[in-house]
Amino acid sequence: TIYVITPTYARLVQKAELTRLSQTFLHVPQLHWILVEDAPSPTPLVRDFLASSGLTYTHLHVLTPKDKKLQEGDPGWLKPRGVEQRNEALRWLRETAAAAGGKGPPPENAVVYFADDDNTYSLQLFEEMRYTQRVSVWPVGLVGGMRFERPVVQDGKVVRFHTGWRPGRPFPIDMAGFAVSLKLLLANPKARFDGDAQMGFLESSLLQNLVTIEGLEPKADMCTKVLVWHTRTEKPKMKREEALVKQGIGSDPNVEV
Amino acid sequence: TIYVITPTYARLVQKAELTRLSQTFLHVPQLHWILVEDAPSPTPLVRDFLASSGLTYTHLHVLTPKDKKLQEGDPGWLKPRGVEQRNEALRWLRETAAAAGGKGPPPENAVVYFADDDNTYSLQLFEEMRYTQRVSVWPVGLVGGMRFERPVVQDGKVVRFHTGWRPGRPFPIDMAGFAVSLKLLLANPKARFDGDAQMGFLESSLLQNLVTIEGLEPKADMCTKVLVWHTRTEKPKMKREEALVKQGIGSDPNVEV
Ligand SMILES: O=c1ccn([C@@H]2O[C@H](COP(=O)(O)OP(=O)(O)O)[C@@H](O)[C@H]2O)c(=O)[nH]1
Ligand SMILES: O=c1ccn([C@@H]2O[C@H](COP(=O)(O)OP(=O)(O)O)[C@@H](O)[C@H]2O)c(=O)[nH]1
Ligand SMILES: [Mn+2]
Ligand SMILES: [Mn+2]
Repeated sequence: TIYVITPTYARLVQKAELTRLSQTFLHVPQLHWILVEDAPSPTPLVRDFLASSGLTYTHLHVLTPKDKKLQEGDPGWLKPRGVEQRNEALRWLRETAAAAGGKGPPPENAVVYFADDDNTYSLQLFEEMRYTQRVSVWPVGLVGGMRFERPVVQDGKVVRFHTGWRPGRPFPIDMAGFAVSLKLLLANPKARFDGDAQMGFLESSLLQNLVTIEGLEPKADMCTKVLVWHTRTEKPKMKREEALVKQGIGSDPNVEV
Repeated sequence: TIYVITPTYARLVQKAELTRLSQTFLHVPQLHWILVEDAPSPTPLVRDFLASSGLTYTHLHVLTPKDKKLQEGDPGWLKPRGVEQRNEALRWLRETAAAAGGKGPPPENAVVYFADDDNTYSLQLFEEMRYTQRVSVWPVGLVGGMRFERPVVQDGKVVRFHTGWRPGRPFPIDMAGFAVSLKLLLANPKARFDGDAQMGFLESSLLQNLVTIEGLEPKADMCTKVLVWHTRTEKPKMKREEALVKQGIGSDPNVEV
């Protein structure tokens, strides 16, 4: 099983993002989607969406505390996004494994991947990560102000990282650029994301507790292929909507978008 | 058959867009993708992408003449995009039908849809348009500065349009908001998009020659459901890449992104 962990939050493009993401995941065998809302309670939009998605899923939620949340006008790099949500999914995975108490299916072949709701994923990516022993890695396109970032591989081993910024970070790898075996996560019950980590060190805060650079498993043809893209979706302008709302003829709020 | 016509052009996010679009289309039975590159000749990236896509497709190309092309810095509304490409696909459809000379499969049930490469399409949308007799219509989300635009239906007929701008246009409908039966397009051999039409009148320039408002077939539960979203993808920043390129250590140009 591939457990895909996705933080998500309410905004105009949310349903569109979840729609195309679910269409990707529907092509992937043995995928279990853990969708974690950044919300005080599950929303009807996401609940109904998941129920009709055709996917195997778990629907969780946890609200990012106000002081950890990016405010309107804050620069994007100020605070990491989706941290509490990914940790909540890790908590659920451990709790579920503990409840099964060795009686459930062995997690030997289970893999965990962190997939933000706005990125673009090729289907091949999931076949690459499916056979992760501990931590596997690959290039990520359109990230960090670069065409791509990637681990540099020599003789089958990761020796350094191609990145435009602070290559000396413990693991200069985007969230979309690695997968972890569930077994390894269960063997290290305290490994989680540190929301207070310095900017750019969020991925490192998890991986440091799990693996060394020598232990990384390079995928995607020794990290020579881009199979995932850190795309971002424009925030839609609502100027005309606001004008119509003032005239009392805005778009029907009962129609879900 | 649903013929889906998509204009596309080379840019950093192109392969990502085509990737998620193809994953949508792979779920749709009897879909034939007509992908038209805005390029002087077919590009290897698109050719290879299509060949391994698993889809039924036709790969065309036509370069938008320089004087019709939006220049860097021009406001987005100045010139319509993808016009020559959509017309080239219409030309191909007519030529192909003529070559079959009535001997091919009858186009009775064939439908034509114009799907830009950056929008988001639900799978239900294709089931709605599949049974188009002449021209079918439905709401489009996140378009025109609005939550959604849509035809307003009374007693099963379109009577006006909910839009934030010039509702008096002949057909104030986004490109993503209608489908046309192939039969109707073949019966009107001169119907095409007019790239010189006033801003916002591109869709009208085609539809005016095909149908009246009374003849529109409302879909998506009498135009009460949003099944397609006019999403747009951010242009990725390349600041770090440019800095690295100056130092001679940019991302390997041989790696396709
Ligand atoms: O307040 C927020 C902002 C973002 N996210 C989620 O966190 C992930 C990363 O956010 P985003 O894509 O905006 O970050 P970036 O593209 O800048 O890496 C995405 O899955 C978002 O849906 C969230 O749960 N709460
Ligand atoms: O120079 C261009 C710009 C755009 N397009 C295509 O035309 C369609 C509409 O363009 P875009 O999505 O940029 O327009 P908007 O989102 O502003 O409606 C898309 O399929 C693009 O790939 C094109 O062929 N050549
Ligand atoms: Mn993102
Ligand atoms: Mn667009």
